[in-house]
Amino acid sequence: MSSSFGTLFRITTFGESHGPSVGAVVDGCPPKITLSEADIQPQLDRRRPAQSRLTTTRNEADRVSILSGVENGKTLGTPISLIVKNKNQRTGDYQQIHSVPRPSHADYTYQMKYGNRALGGGGRSSARETVARVAGGAIAEKLLYEDCGIEIVAWVSNVYSIEASSIDIMGITRTDVDRSIVRCPDSDTSEKIKEAILEAQRAGDSLGGIITCVCRNLPAGLGEPVFDKLEALLAQAMLSIPATKGFAIGSGFACSEMRGSAHNDLFIKKGDRLGTKTNHSGGVQGGISNGEPVLFRVAFKPTSTISLPQQTVDFNGNDVVLEAKGRHDPCVVPRAIPIVEGMTALVIADLALRQKSR
Amino acid sequence: MSSSFGTLFRITTFGESHGPSVGAVVDGCPPKITLSEADIQPQLDRRRPAQSRLTTTRNEADRVSILSGVENGKTLGTPISLIVKNKNQRTGDYQQIHSVPRPSHADYTYQMKYGNRALGGGGRSSARETVARVAGGAIAEKLLYEDCGIEIVAWVSNVYSIEASSIDIMGITRTDVDRSIVRCPDSDTSEKIKEAILEAQRAGDSLGGIITCVCRNLPAGLGEPVFDKLEALLAQAMLSIPATKGFAIGSGFACSEMRGSAHNDLFIKKGDRLGTKTNHSGGVQGGISNGEPVLFRVAFKPTSTISLPQQTVDFNGNDVVLEAKGRHDPCVVPRAIPIVEGMTALVIADLALRQKSR
Amino acid sequence: MSSSFGTLFRITTFGESHGPSVGAVVDGCPPKITLSEADIQPQLDRRRPAQSRLTTTRNEADRVSILSGVENGKTLGTPISLIVKNKNQRTGDYQQIHSVPRPSHADYTYQMKYGNRALGGGGRSSARETVARVAGGAIAEKLLYEDCGIEIVAWVSNVYSIEASSIDIMGITRTDVDRSIVRCPDSDTSEKIKEAILEAQRAGDSLGGIITCVCRNLPAGLGEPVFDKLEALLAQAMLSIPATKGFAIGSGFACSEMRGSAHNDLFIKKGDRLGTKTNHSGGVQGGISNGEPVLFRVAFKPTSTISLPQQTVDFNGNDVVLEAKGRHDPCVVPRAIPIVEGMTALVIADLALRQKSR
Amino acid sequence: MSSSFGTLFRITTFGESHGPSVGAVVDGCPPKITLSEADIQPQLDRRRPAQSRLTTTRNEADRVSILSGVENGKTLGTPISLIVKNKNQRTGDYQQIHSVPRPSHADYTYQMKYGNRALGGGGRSSARETVARVAGGAIAEKLLYEDCGIEIVAWVSNVYSIEASSIDIMGITRTDVDRSIVRCPDSDTSEKIKEAILEAQRAGDSLGGIITCVCRNLPAGLGEPVFDKLEALLAQAMLSIPATKGFAIGSGFACSEMRGSAHNDLFIKKGDRLGTKTNHSGGVQGGISNGEPVLFRVAFKPTSTISLPQQTVDFNGNDVVLEAKGRHDPCVVPRAIPIVEGMTALVIADLALRQKSR
Repeated sequence: MSSSFGTLFRITTFGESHGPSVGAVVDGCPPKITLSEADIQPQLDRRRPAQSRLTTTRNEADRVSILSGVENGKTLGTPISLIVKNKNQRTGDYQQIHSVPRPSHADYTYQMKYGNRALGGGGRSSARETVARVAGGAIAEKLLYEDCGIEIVAWVSNVYSIEASSIDIMGITRTDVDRSIVRCPDSDTSEKIKEAILEAQRAGDSLGGIITCVCRNLPAGLGEPVFDKLEALLAQAMLSIPATKGFAIGSGFACSEMRGSAHNDLFIKKGDRLGTKTNHSGGVQGGISNGEPVLFRVAFKPTSTISLPQQTVDFNGNDVVLEAKGRHDPCVVPRAIPIVEGMTALVIADLALRQKSR
Repeated sequence: MSSSFGTLFRITTFGESHGPSVGAVVDGCPPKITLSEADIQPQLDRRRPAQSRLTTTRNEADRVSILSGVENGKTLGTPISLIVKNKNQRTGDYQQIHSVPRPSHADYTYQMKYGNRALGGGGRSSARETVARVAGGAIAEKLLYEDCGIEIVAWVSNVYSIEASSIDIMGITRTDVDRSIVRCPDSDTSEKIKEAILEAQRAGDSLGGIITCVCRNLPAGLGEPVFDKLEALLAQAMLSIPATKGFAIGSGFACSEMRGSAHNDLFIKKGDRLGTKTNHSGGVQGGISNGEPVLFRVAFKPTSTISLPQQTVDFNGNDVVLEAKGRHDPCVVPRAIPIVEGMTALVIADLALRQKSR
Repeated sequence: MSSSFGTLFRITTFGESHGPSVGAVVDGCPPKITLSEADIQPQLDRRRPAQSRLTTTRNEADRVSILSGVENGKTLGTPISLIVKNKNQRTGDYQQIHSVPRPSHADYTYQMKYGNRALGGGGRSSARETVARVAGGAIAEKLLYEDCGIEIVAWVSNVYSIEASSIDIMGITRTDVDRSIVRCPDSDTSEKIKEAILEAQRAGDSLGGIITCVCRNLPAGLGEPVFDKLEALLAQAMLSIPATKGFAIGSGFACSEMRGSAHNDLFIKKGDRLGTKTNHSGGVQGGISNGEPVLFRVAFKPTSTISLPQQTVDFNGNDVVLEAKGRHDPCVVPRAIPIVEGMTALVIADLALRQKSR
Repeated sequence: MSSSFGTLFRITTFGESHGPSVGAVVDGCPPKITLSEADIQPQLDRRRPAQSRLTTTRNEADRVSILSGVENGKTLGTPISLIVKNKNQRTGDYQQIHSVPRPSHADYTYQMKYGNRALGGGGRSSARETVARVAGGAIAEKLLYEDCGIEIVAWVSNVYSIEASSIDIMGITRTDVDRSIVRCPDSDTSEKIKEAILEAQRAGDSLGGIITCVCRNLPAGLGEPVFDKLEALLAQAMLSIPATKGFAIGSGFACSEMRGSAHNDLFIKKGDRLGTKTNHSGGVQGGISNGEPVLFRVAFKPTSTISLPQQTVDFNGNDVVLEAKGRHDPCVVPRAIPIVEGMTALVIADLALRQKSR
């Protein structure tokens, strides 16, 4: 179990999906940052279940409390502990999974790894753990925005085979994103995605999707070669989010179909700094930010919990038909937006502090 | 600069592309493993420049020496230091880049980050640094193979828009892969790729590609949720390799176009363990290996160094036409195979030791 | 701020002395250990204020709650979070220290480091932070005892210039230690120490002391040269406890007055293993446990908070006479016993897991 | 095996005493520091064997080479690798120890830990490993001196029961220390110590001693509570040096015999900062430097290798008389001076970079 992330700005998360609470300790946040629960709650609200008819009905208010590290509204430079109580546990729903590992869930692998596992829901493998990341990420965001105006905005760019048309990555805001409950800022596509998700929900099935994220106003110089390159830590951060299957920065997999003469980002003068004409690099060269927007995409698989019956086997290898009860989202991407943003902020805050030490 | 990777099995690399040598210290390798330079050299030979007409003409023998940690052919459990001398530096080729940052290279970002940079070639950002990873990775491979028969095989699956047809992931060997100089085991595709690369080379241009990697015989239970999940560390490892733009495990980005009922990997009995019917998960569930083959893909951009003239600016923002001299590969994927394999071995060796402590 | 300790068995602590709570997250505890609050509370009770007339009157019940990582009385292998509420804060006592840094306290250095500090008591520098260490240490102790019968017992061996006579380090138990409120198992000395402390208390003054600690049944082989040697991590652990000024293992500083022929621990056969005739090494050779009892001593300075007036200066350098109010112990060693034991357990649990991975 | 030390300024050492070489990789050194072998060699010369008739006759020139991280006399910000060749191995001397573990050496514990060990001399447990620390420490010193004029000076203050009289800690220089071959700056005591060591040497025996170290011009604010306090990391660093048995800062163990009213360091105005009247704290409060000199002592045991016959047992428990051959120092403290200084510099450089990030 490795529940800490970051070198200087470090988050440690704890909590099972059906235990008394989930939370985080954020160590290394600089002192004298203005901070209160009000800075954190909005992102938790965007991640909250039961926020729309596209999401699970598990009803959690997800109110965060700060237990340390802040006095008189300012950070002390000491560890900030955050706690969110679980209220709407319904462990009865999970009785069958005591004996049957759910397909594409972590019941089997946790059992094989630990010889023990939480029996109420996914325990630590549940997306409920990401509450802690979103809360910690909100602190990182506050620091980055106050320090140098860094802005992070993620949105749903694909669901099933429906793709959003081109988005203005320099102008897009969270308000734009939140205009639709699917969090796709292209309103036509948004509507189609909503229909597709509702259709899947009715069918007892689920859908996958892609989130795109932009990070603006990042200064040149962030990233620690050779192993803690900016894109390498972002990749780790994204693939540590439940249900993710891929990460791509800049041109991503499309780069494999390009020639160097087309892919190279030629330098141009942009005010008093150098910029690039194109941004196939996604804002990173040699693992270090170059001052252009950092742009990346994350693939999320369809929710593993589905209501359709599944022909599988129990822990002893006996055939069984599984029909899920537990509450779930038919498509995770709308609620995963603040998780992607939070993990991005955690990566960048850590790299920003590391660069300051130089 | 963060040149260490791993928690218990940890590599630290050093060396600039045109300095006296590159090398690594591997700390945490268990004692009593049979080890000599002969275990390491073959992978270095596969990474070596000037191995075929598809690669740079920089001629480096890349002979590795073990300086510590091994006595009488057995590891001592102490740090193993590895060194490879640079012989064929030709720093004169790089005179223009003193004043002109090469497009899509790291000259600009290193200068912005450190206020200083190696002036002979890419210094630390050069792919020459990966010699150290390949050497360290070969030790990790030896350990994994001796300990539990784990096999790692990577191959070129795409270049430009040429895609290899289906590969037998359970049967493929390095011998199969090395049959062609492009390291694509599908002989028809291999030939087409070779032609495409040679054509790009003649045109002074370069091509991107995709490497697919399989890891067989991994026991269930490896991976450390929630931040050091197997796929998260693989993603970090792959995106830390120069020129990579994307990582995808199992179904990868295609998962976004699937329904849960099609994507879920139903369990079946496989001998005395549970296996899965399909492997969209890529051998990982909840960040932990499930005993199925771990399968992932890595996207490499076209080589940034091209001979075609490029209209760009110098460090002061003045227009300039850059015509690269330095020697380079028209397509990096054939030589990147042992790098992908080495980084994979480093990730898994570390996770295997971490699991043993439990 | 670095509030994490350990590589595989890792504790992260949080909380200010006058904030809402103090606590810890223990990550890396193996699964299936029987654990409940009842395993932790006894050590907290031994550390608790107001337990005797030799201790501060701040009245804290210090009841611990486990918030995660345990289900049905067994650890899950996931992070165990522990919380203890602060109840008896009295921040009013600390008004003068807003402008006057208390001599030999951390008010000045925290202000210089962070440019900000907790104004109610010592914040994070207060010994109240050690509640979290004691709680986490109790989990480590449970693991060590269940796994291999390791026993850790500390006692007060010196206060002021009063020294306990020889103690039977193989036989001594916590019950022996707790027989006196000063936690010195030599009853004559104990009585004298009690008188000395009471006398200092009446005089508004404070006293220093020494704690000796033995760790029995440690297998040979624990300790990770060259930087994480057993004695090196113990030294770090002990010097990280508030008010400590020295650490000595085995012969300690007396070794400087010895000849090699007297100091060397000659090997003898002890059952089926090798042991040593003497134990000047303190159970450690080359940074690795040798199977003999690990024995070390820790020096604690006299409590910095005294009631006697002190001629000092305020933050602006103006002369001022400081007369402490806040509640405090006239001598910290009796209550520091479980802290020393807890930190010892944390060090050894981490090293035991690291050795298992080999 | 844990051969790395430091968070941002990190050294990794490698090499066995009788292998081909010892060395280090220093990662995290800031760019643009003027650096060459000439900055490192002087401290290696002070550590070098065969430098006087008080030291082992193993003749090693100990010439350091920089293999990476420096170009045109300036650091690049990339890992600096350092190598020193072993020349005067004489493994034949160690034949008896194949079967007999040397008393108070690490032969037994390495064998128990790793099931394997270097058979030529102490391998990794030999003080020869400290060559790498001294080399890396010299880089840290250079950084600290250039950055803020920090000076570190250590000297021999005790050998056997001979104690140096009071030293001017603000004025003492390395030149003062090196005036005598025992490195005790008090010339009367120095002469007595020399005689005692020579007498022990003639007798085939060895002596212990104490090194005192001062660190001047340290700014207030260095140290990372609660686990990486300045004194905690110094304690770890010192106890990781072979042959050390104790660490004490400021008043050290004497604090246990003092009253708070005598021990507290009252604040006074010193120019534009606050200082303290006395320095029982040793320059550290709450784990953070306060701007006063950091002063600490380290106890070294008598060399374990002695020529006198020792009645011990072999690995199988059979009685045996051991008469050491291998070359050795009759007292290690004169040559340990640069090791103490080097480790101190490594601790402070790391903490200085960590504070900069804030």
